[in-house]
Formats: sequence, C-alpha cells, structure tokens
Amino acid sequence: MKIDGKAWRSIWVQPDGWSVGIIDQTKLPHAFVTARLASAAEASHAIKSMMVRGAPLIGATAAYGLCIALRDDASDSSLNAAYEFLLAARPTAINLRWALDEMRTALLPLAPSARVQAAYAAAQKICDDDVAICENIGRHGLKLIQAAQKTTAREVNILTHCNAGWLATVDWGTALAPIYMAHDSGVKLHVWVDETRPRNQGAALTAWELGKHGVPHTIIADNAGGHLMQHRRVDMCIVGTDRTTARGDVCNKIGTYLKALAAQDNGVPFYVALPSTTIDWTIEDGVASIPIEERAPEELTRITGRTLNGDLCEVDIAAPGSPAGNYAFDVTPARLVSGLITERGICAASRDSMRALFPERA
Amino acid sequence: MKIDGKAWRSIWVQPDGWSVGIIDQTKLPHAFVTARLASAAEASHAIKSMMVRGAPLIGATAAYGLCIALRDDASDSSLNAAYEFLLAARPTAINLRWALDEMRTALLPLAPSARVQAAYAAAQKICDDDVAICENIGRHGLKLIQAAQKTTAREVNILTHCNAGWLATVDWGTALAPIYMAHDSGVKLHVWVDETRPRNQGAALTAWELGKHGVPHTIIADNAGGHLMQHRRVDMCIVGTDRTTARGDVCNKIGTYLKALAAQDNGVPFYVALPSTTIDWTIEDGVASIPIEERAPEELTRITGRTLNGDLCEVDIAAPGSPAGNYAFDVTPARLVSGLITERGICAASRDSMRALFPERA
Repeated sequence: MKIDGKAWRSIWVQPDGWSVGIIDQTKLPHAFVTARLASAAEASHAIKSMMVRGAPLIGATAAYGLCIALRDDASDSSLNAAYEFLLAARPTAINLRWALDEMRTALLPLAPSARVQAAYAAAQKICDDDVAICENIGRHGLKLIQAAQKTTAREVNILTHCNAGWLATVDWGTALAPIYMAHDSGVKLHVWVDETRPRNQGAALTAWELGKHGVPHTIIADNAGGHLMQHRRVDMCIVGTDRTTARGDVCNKIGTYLKALAAQDNGVPFYVALPSTTIDWTIEDGVASIPIEERAPEELTRITGRTLNGDLCEVDIAAPGSPAGNYAFDVTPARLVSGLITERGICAASRDSMRALFPERA
Repeated sequence: MKIDGKAWRSIWVQPDGWSVGIIDQTKLPHAFVTARLASAAEASHAIKSMMVRGAPLIGATAAYGLCIALRDDASDSSLNAAYEFLLAARPTAINLRWALDEMRTALLPLAPSARVQAAYAAAQKICDDDVAICENIGRHGLKLIQAAQKTTAREVNILTHCNAGWLATVDWGTALAPIYMAHDSGVKLHVWVDETRPRNQGAALTAWELGKHGVPHTIIADNAGGHLMQHRRVDMCIVGTDRTTARGDVCNKIGTYLKALAAQDNGVPFYVALPSTTIDWTIEDGVASIPIEERAPEELTRITGRTLNGDLCEVDIAAPGSPAGNYAFDVTPARLVSGLITERGICAASRDSMRALFPERA
C-alpha cells in the first residue's frame, strides 16, 4: 500500500541485495522510521521488541533472518542453530514456526553452497504468497463493499477493530484488503476505526495506514460502535482473526465480540477476513476451547504519546495502586458472524460451509 | 464514603462556617487535592472547569455559591444576578438549574436579612436530600447483591461502567451505593471497573473511590466485559444513567449499550441505578428522541497522565492528522435492562412498572 503516494511493503530486501528493511512499528504513529536488519540477532530483536508484528510479517522476518545467518555459515549446524534462535524470539507465534519450518525443509536437502541463494528465493516466495493471499481476500471482500454501495446514496461506512492491515502482513492486510481495493477502484467509503484498547492498534496503526494511503476514516472509542450502528451509520463490519475454529467461531482482539453483538442487534453484516491458515480445524467451540492470553496490566494503565513539543513520553493514566486485568482476545461465536472472507472465497461461518470451500479438510 | 479510613462527602462547609470545601476532581486520580470556594466566582469556576462534576454535586456547588454571594449582598437584585451567573457555568446541566430554582424560590419571599441563614440551610438540605436518595438506592440495590451472594460460593462479581459513585453525588453515589453498602455489611464482592474511554472516569475516578474505601476491584478495558461474561466471571452489571425515558430506555455513558448486549447474551442481570429525577416522563423511545452530544475529538486523542517522576504530562496518542469522533452517550433499550434501582424501590424497565412505582406520574 502507499505512504504519501509511494508504494511500500512492510518488509523488503535492501538495494545491497542481502540486508532487510522493515518499518519500526514501535515508533508508529508518532514517527515513521525504517530499520535495517543485517544479522539474525537483529531479526530476532525486531520480532521480540515488536518492531514487526502480525503473524505473516513475523514469519517473513524470521525467514529473512535465516537467509542472513546462512550468508555467514551455510552448514547444517548453522542452519539448525539459526532456526532455534529465531524460533525463540516469539515461541507462541504459530506463523513464526511455520515460516522457519518451510525454510529448513527447503534448504536442508541442498548443498551448503546452494543454500544462500535458495534461502532468499524461499523467503521472497513466503512474502509473495502472503501478498497473493491478502490480494485474494481483498478481491472477494471487494464484492461485498460494491454490493453495499449499490444500496446506499452516500459513502459505504465500514467499521473495523484493531489492525488487520498491511502493517500486520506483507502488503494489503486481511480485513483492510477489501477496503484498500474498494477505495483504489473508486468506491466512496469511510472507515470507523476502533481505537482498540489497551494497545491502541486502531488509533495508532490502522488510522496511520488508512491516512497515509488516503482512505477517509475516523477514529472512535471502542465504546462508540453500538451507538453508530443504532443510528444506521455503519453499513458493515470487517475484522480480522487470530484463530478460527472449524465451525466458524472467531478469536480476535478483545472487544470484537461486543461489536458483533451490536451488529446483530442492528442488522449490520459482520464479516471476518482471514487467510485459511488461521483456521484451526481441530476445535469447534471457541469459548470453551481457546485459552485467552492475559498480558501485563501496564499495557492498560500506562501509555506512550507525543508531548506538545514532539517528544515521546510514557505516562500512567489509572488510579495508583488499583489492579488492572488485561485480556488480549475474545471469542465471537459463529452465530454472530455473517461470513468469512478467505483467499478462496466467502463462506458462512459454519462447519458445512467452511468444509465446502476447503474440501481437502473434510 | 471513606478515604483511607476517614469519612468524606464530596462537598462540605468549612470550619469557618461559610466557605465551602470540595475535592478538585480534575487532579484525580493523580493527586488528592481539596479546594476552598470563597466566592460565587470560585463556585462557578469549579463547575466550569469540572473540579466538581456529576449532576447532584454540580447542583449542590451552585447552591452553596448562591449562599456565599448572599453574604456580600442579600438583595433581590444580588440574588437574581448570582442565580444567572451560576446558571451560566454549565447551562445544559439540568440539575444546576433545578438546585438554583429551589434556592431562589425558597429565598425570594424572605426578608434580605433572613436570607443568608436560610440559604445555607437550603443548600444543606439539597445535599442531605441527595445523600438520602443515594442511600435509599443503595438499600434497595443491596438486596440484589445479597441475593446473588446466596447463589455463589465465591465473591459476587459486579461490573460497572463510568463513574456513578460518591464523587458524582454528595455521598454514596448511585450505581456504587449498593456496592458500598454490600461491602460495608460484609458481603464479599469484587468490582470490574470499565476504564470508560474516552474520558477514563472508570480507571481514574471509580477505581480511585473503590480503592480508597477498600472495595476490591480490577480495572479492565471497555473491550473486556463481554469476554468476562462469557466465562461467568460477572454476576451482575450495575450502571448509572443520565436520562431515562418513560418506558425505561437508558441514556448513559457511551459503551453502556454494548455491555447490556453482552449481559443479555450471557444471561447476566443488567441493573441501572437512578434517582427518579433522571426520568424524563415526556419521552418513550430513547434512540429516536435523545440527541447524543458530540464532544471535542481531543478527549479521545489526547490524555493526561503521570510521568515516572510524578509530574503530570499531556500526550497525543493517535495517528497525527487522523480525524476522531467523540460521542458522549448511548441509549440502552429497555428490553436489555433487568431492572431500575430507584430511591423508592426496584422496578422493571417498562412503562407500567415505572408508573406503578411512581403513581403520581400516571
């Protein structure tokens, strides 16, 4: 997507042909800073410190980290050591392991002398495949927005929660892919951006992305979506998902469930955009089966912002001494989901409909 | 209620017998600072600058402002001038006008020489009446919490939104009155405190109040309540209301509606505590009839907190240049409300049940 008119991906090989460029997302939205990763250690640090975040981008960063490690030493032991080292950066990130497995499986059978070139090709393919998946999600979702456009005399109003944009993937994003595609093809639209407490990915990242690409949007408190839906100011919701069950329950950023309830209460379609890799075909009941991560309370009680003179400053905002609970995700039951937008097409959030679209899983 | 073991009200006459003490709520939760109001101008400023907030407390502050003005000059023209001056501090606050009307109606018939003493008595009565109303709300709500206690082996978990505590009234509060009363009478309970974006009255004021009185509580993101209800970690919700329609629709802080939806979806009782003065008997359909105030976007994009060295610092937290929408209230339809806790007892959120409890309105 574009930043002030220039096309970017969230990760790229530098002009030197081997080091890797990323956007330091810990600085957003306050400053736009790129960083150069020139070692596996720097790649690991970028993942650990959340300079890169979002499952696909974490995987791509680890893949390139492996490439760089192999430039120094392409032996089996070096490959295995770099694999373990990079995996430890965020051990619970499923996509990180997946990307590293892909790389190692492709590279181990090769002669060490052939590995570096093959590694860069494999990492590039991981990135390109992710872009293709997101582009397909965008193409399918675009039809929903175009259909909504036909039923309204004004712009199409879409509400989204958290950041499922190009910053979380390599390009396009998941939930935002249909929005970018609709905007680029001339559909008049406007996005309600949930702030997304406690980490504010909406106000910080989604608003930044949309603004830089030129998509009209408004940041709102997470509390506001119900009111807007009651007053017919939302035509559809599109959100992402971290994990989707085999019957279509959706585990996404905390607060997603509340928006789905409001959408149902007001007859607003509620769509979830996802690469099919987020579907966990082994579980059905998301509320009963998915453990919800509890994160540090300081994410809720402490916040970083820009002072009036432009410096960054971290401040405590809650009553001193009061405990805080920080639940990272919630589960939206399939009954509240109008449809799943996947790279293969749109299906209902139901066991039958999902297996019809992915018959190899039946 | 208590602050570190000592009983307080939110407004009081100082030991000098005429000036008035308040808690400067703009400093909370970062610092506990009291202020002395020694002129009508200082009372007006305290209201305007939100050193005092909450309908009952605003009314009480204006009443005392009138008392102080009359000490200098108790003539009709002085009384009328002070009335107009204080009314202008927050012209849309219905309770401000009500308190000033009460005062003027009581004082105008009196000889000027008798007015000062009568004014202080009338202001005191406004405060005492408010305390009595809140105490009665507390007594009635207490029964609901006691009943919930009988059905659980653990503490009773209550979720509240925004601040409807003693800081918003003279003492006890509305939604928090039953909670304080249950806690004081030995019921084991724990309060989930919604942060309440964008003005954070939950994390700042409700958490501060509960903490200082010793009530166990946990601050959560507004996004978290649905998840907690799905996992049976909320036994009931109790919230306040700014305006209640004749059929029981409830206009309260933005986001209340989302919690009511989650409560219904999970079979959690959702109660609204209110003095009957907040009932607008002239309207039925809250969503259609109540205009929702849109406030400055900076309330959402800018926040004040404590730096690590204890200074207060204001920071911008959203993507620069992105517009923000700040809707202050939403309407929870009566169908989602389990009961209204009033000073006269508990009734269903329905026209018939409300008129049965307040037959003089029928």
